[in-house]
Amino acid sequence: MRSSQQIRVLAFDVFGTCVDWHGSIAREVNDLGLVGRQGAIDGAAFATALRAGYKPAMARVRSGELGWTKIDDLHRMILDGVLADIGVDLPEADRAYLNLAWHRLSPWPDTVSGLARLKSRFIITTLSNGNLGLLTNMAKAAGLPWDCILSAEVFRHYKPDPETYLGVCEVFDIKPSQMLMVACHKDDLRAAASHGCQTAFVERPLEFGAGVSVDLSVEADFQFHAVDFNDLADQLGC
Amino acid sequence: MRSSQQIRVLAFDVFGTCVDWHGSIAREVNDLGLVGRQGAIDGAAFATALRAGYKPAMARVRSGELGWTKIDDLHRMILDGVLADIGVDLPEADRAYLNLAWHRLSPWPDTVSGLARLKSRFIITTLSNGNLGLLTNMAKAAGLPWDCILSAEVFRHYKPDPETYLGVCEVFDIKPSQMLMVACHKDDLRAAASHGCQTAFVERPLEFGAGVSVDLSVEADFQFHAVDFNDLADQLGC
Repeated sequence: MRSSQQIRVLAFDVFGTCVDWHGSIAREVNDLGLVGRQGAIDGAAFATALRAGYKPAMARVRSGELGWTKIDDLHRMILDGVLADIGVDLPEADRAYLNLAWHRLSPWPDTVSGLARLKSRFIITTLSNGNLGLLTNMAKAAGLPWDCILSAEVFRHYKPDPETYLGVCEVFDIKPSQMLMVACHKDDLRAAASHGCQTAFVERPLEFGAGVSVDLSVEADFQFHAVDFNDLADQLGC
Repeated sequence: MRSSQQIRVLAFDVFGTCVDWHGSIAREVNDLGLVGRQGAIDGAAFATALRAGYKPAMARVRSGELGWTKIDDLHRMILDGVLADIGVDLPEADRAYLNLAWHRLSPWPDTVSGLARLKSRFIITTLSNGNLGLLTNMAKAAGLPWDCILSAEVFRHYKPDPETYLGVCEVFDIKPSQMLMVACHKDDLRAAASHGCQTAFVERPLEFGAGVSVDLSVEADFQFHAVDFNDLADQLGC
């Protein structure tokens, strides 16, 4: 049941939903002018390769194969692997700097204005697998006006583990139906919905770069479907 | 050694340092017009009695006598005890509302402007024993412009346990000497200093209400001593 009346907290996925990881990483890599075994490295392909390692890395933590490891460290393991695969020999300082590109991701054009409107009526918090330091640095650089920064790091569980969604409800002492999970990823929303949270799908057609198709279809399972954050603010009466 | 050059993160104690718990609680209690066994309840005395239960309640968690219990719940235990002691019979809804007075504490006159200046140069985070929901609601109501809200709740340890100060350093991937602990409580600062953090004492002469004397003496152990947050911003070149 859709009921914006009872919503008190909006929890946002961040990578893809709030910020353009693909475009930002591609830009930084292209600026570096990396050369590998087979010639110049294409930033867009590099960004896609990094991201491909993301869910498998978290799966190792979720399964217990790896102890708790924050995203900065998982990102570094993935980065080292991709660089080795394509034969790029990058000095440690450059490698450390590039790994923090995830702290410098750019917001989508509607993100900051949309969040400011949503913040006027609701508590807006992150609920990201990104670590607290990453999310704080990103918010400061991009001007994201969070009321609170929550992360898998707080709950020591990665999404879609139940402890993350239910952890937000516990932090704010609310029922799941009073929390709206906002994401451009349907699996994230379905997991939140399975615990009774309300859900808002936001279209991010360029998440994986231009020309890569993304499932933007409307699903009856989600309470809200918005083309961007300002559209969501309209629908929520902000 | 005092070195503002290397400071990257300012971690703030909140109750007393950023907000006037005594004045705010006293005002709410006086507004309620409570009557106890011996007549009308004085808000200032009530605030002092509540706060007297604070460290002993956390000590029960720190010692392991109580499992992890967040401040909202410790506050409620203390409130129920004080109301029983003075013979005030308060209905559940009023009791729950009064317990959340800690979410509505007013900032000191310099808090918001000082934090805005300090935020321009440093990451500013809470490091409070207050829980995340409390600190978020307080920030939203009082306009405190935190970059990040960290709490004992994140580390599952109350200050002055080492896990809290060192936890902030881990979150931001910094050395203790790159963190400045800001507080009006010398025991909090001494604990932070014992782990290598830099320290700033801020005078809050009215923390316990008018006429209650507070130790404001300058100590060589602390790198900074400020009369308020704007003075601290001056000293830190913001």
